[in-house]
Amino acid sequence: MIATTTIRVRYGDTDCMKVVYYSNYLTYFEVGRVEYLRQQGMSIADINEKIHMPVVEALVRFVKPARLDDLLDVHCWVSERKRASFRFGYEIRDAAGATVATGHTLHACWDPATSKMTALPPWLQQMMPVVPEGPAGRV
Amino acid sequence: MIATTTIRVRYGDTDCMKVVYYSNYLTYFEVGRVEYLRQQGMSIADINEKIHMPVVEALVRFVKPARLDDLLDVHCWVSERKRASFRFGYEIRDAAGATVATGHTLHACWDPATSKMTALPPWLQQMMPVVPEGPAGRV
Amino acid sequence: MIATTTIRVRYGDTDCMKVVYYSNYLTYFEVGRVEYLRQQGMSIADINEKIHMPVVEALVRFVKPARLDDLLDVHCWVSERKRASFRFGYEIRDAAGATVATGHTLHACWDPATSKMTALPPWLQQMMPVVPEGPAGRV
Amino acid sequence: MIATTTIRVRYGDTDCMKVVYYSNYLTYFEVGRVEYLRQQGMSIADINEKIHMPVVEALVRFVKPARLDDLLDVHCWVSERKRASFRFGYEIRDAAGATVATGHTLHACWDPATSKMTALPPWLQQMMPVVPEGPAGRV
Repeated sequence: MIATTTIRVRYGDTDCMKVVYYSNYLTYFEVGRVEYLRQQGMSIADINEKIHMPVVEALVRFVKPARLDDLLDVHCWVSERKRASFRFGYEIRDAAGATVATGHTLHACWDPATSKMTALPPWLQQMMPVVPEGPAGRV
Repeated sequence: MIATTTIRVRYGDTDCMKVVYYSNYLTYFEVGRVEYLRQQGMSIADINEKIHMPVVEALVRFVKPARLDDLLDVHCWVSERKRASFRFGYEIRDAAGATVATGHTLHACWDPATSKMTALPPWLQQMMPVVPEGPAGRV
Repeated sequence: MIATTTIRVRYGDTDCMKVVYYSNYLTYFEVGRVEYLRQQGMSIADINEKIHMPVVEALVRFVKPARLDDLLDVHCWVSERKRASFRFGYEIRDAAGATVATGHTLHACWDPATSKMTALPPWLQQMMPVVPEGPAGRV
Repeated sequence: MIATTTIRVRYGDTDCMKVVYYSNYLTYFEVGRVEYLRQQGMSIADINEKIHMPVVEALVRFVKPARLDDLLDVHCWVSERKRASFRFGYEIRDAAGATVATGHTLHACWDPATSKMTALPPWLQQMMPVVPEGPAGRV
């Protein structure tokens, strides 16, 4: 299961170097994983009522700058799943198929009812089949 | 009472036209009014516990583009106060004193305890002496 | 000619009041007008090579707060056209059809070749039929 | 040489989880390194005329969520310097001294005159004494 979401680069995403400002790739990653979860059957609003998934670590490798009005494909998959944490992998490609950025986010599982870390519930495990190597390999 | 707050233009504030992206002036306005309130004795976190002040209308006039690393002065004052609403006026100037942008935000007063609009409490009125014309005149 | 663009509210668009942060409506307006121009036959990158259209004034009226993951329709039209300036009108509606925000942006026409204001060229006039009152009336 | 810059968390920096949205830590890192360079004698605008320093990789470890109106100290130092690349280390602490986030950015050195990667010029090397372990240790 690798989810693909298409994003159009907006004016406000770019900076005075005429390329996408670097922090916005984390926003694109987030859009990718929200759509991953929707494609697996749950909206982020529904998930948030049951479980929170705070980001513990985020890594981005910047390969090729994206520019205003570019159409980007955000590929997103679960690259690792442990008892109480999991990892999303990402690859962003431009319309010509060239890699723009790769990266990962590591998430913990937190129960808003008890305000404590918790193991991934079975319904969440089921939504997250592990794909160790995505289109970009290990990230 | 006119509060002045200094802001440095960040990379992420600019866009590929090499000037500050237009929506960021609303962010600068917000920084200006939060500092206005602090200078009048209350942090925004303390105010939020008692009263919410949602923005009902916002206007920006863009006079002169600001650029990366510019130091901007945000001048902020209360230009109008009614029973259950009030208006902040703003003028942003660059280091040479030239006007970069002017504008206003119109706010309602909302009580989080009752989830209803409410009149400005006396302590808030006292924090908000009206200055009908700011440095930029009526905005 | 009224262009409609659908936008999904992202995490980073919201703020700690659990609603869309107010400056982001200007970003949504910008997405709406870029798509308006594309539907009229030109990408913003192509237009930028010929003519720049700096925003001179922006107004937003906030009607109903949007929230995380909401699907919003941005309606955009040209509400006024003068010799060397024009106005876009906007209305943002949620999935139930309720008005979230309305507003306008006023633009000047600037020639990057001469670095001077200029009249709207005929090809741009043709792309911009005037619709004085949009779905929201005059804004 | 460890530069320290103080940042106030703005409304727009937070998200509907009532904490700072995760991509904004990259913005805070950028503010920290721009101020590092200024404290070492050059503004980013001056540097950009001579050399560009694109980010090749960015890592953030999220330790403790920051909230609206928090005052954060961004500590920034050069943790590694090679012939044609270098690494900034970062630690963000709150007003009580607790670590909020740590991370690094890896930069290449690019000559805008030749549009090619280049070795760090001597003036840039001199501005960047290496501090292998910052306040947070290796990041």
